[in-house]
Amino acid sequence: MDVSRADEGTFERGDDARFTGEVWLRSTLADDRETNIGIVHFSPGARTHWHRHPGGQFLFGVSGRGRVRTRGEDGHVLQPGDVIHVGPGEWHFHGGTGDSPLVHVAVNGGAAPEWGDPVRDEEFADGF
Amino acid sequence: MDVSRADEGTFERGDDARFTGEVWLRSTLADDRETNIGIVHFSPGARTHWHRHPGGQFLFGVSGRGRVRTRGEDGHVLQPGDVIHVGPGEWHFHGGTGDSPLVHVAVNGGAAPEWGDPVRDEEFADGF
Repeated sequence: MDVSRADEGTFERGDDARFTGEVWLRSTLADDRETNIGIVHFSPGARTHWHRHPGGQFLFGVSGRGRVRTRGEDGHVLQPGDVIHVGPGEWHFHGGTGDSPLVHVAVNGGAAPEWGDPVRDEEFADGF
Repeated sequence: MDVSRADEGTFERGDDARFTGEVWLRSTLADDRETNIGIVHFSPGARTHWHRHPGGQFLFGVSGRGRVRTRGEDGHVLQPGDVIHVGPGEWHFHGGTGDSPLVHVAVNGGAAPEWGDPVRDEEFADGF
């Protein structure tokens, strides 16, 4: 049994190669199946770049409101207690809404994601 | 992309074949790798029976305080923001502490768990 304590966790600033705006990430634990758990705080309008996870991803809303969208599909607003699943290989983004920060838990499957371009403002607004 | 909305979710009472005390569970989404996400509310002292997950389990503390212990090992108090990983096949339990309720997110790996005996009061207190 492994433990990652909130009061001992380190938050790192999300870098410009993967994120737009102010984002803080805490990596926690991983298992032998390459699933890992991260806690992510987004400022309003801050968001990931387009990316995809080889094993898919679950998101659990802890606080605030977020936008989550798969390329070419309608977007979803993530609120506290909501769970979203993004399938393996789906190009998608997540972040705060325009007027709200977001804290979510991310359950990331299948090793490191592949990162793409930043999400332009038009793309961030589209489908919501 | 699949969504399980908190405001549409159904909580079911945990049954006596798997839980001791008042426990409420909301099942959300599962992926193709047989990982699924559940939200669980325990009253103080309420807990799972001994059980084990074929693919292991992550727990994320949302509110309150919990006890989590693998058989034969020391226990851990789960607090908000903490993440615990229980390895595949480890017989373990989780629940509220004696004086606090607990809400946690459970990330369950590898299909249905195997259920064992109730956790006796001495076992619930041992190792904390």
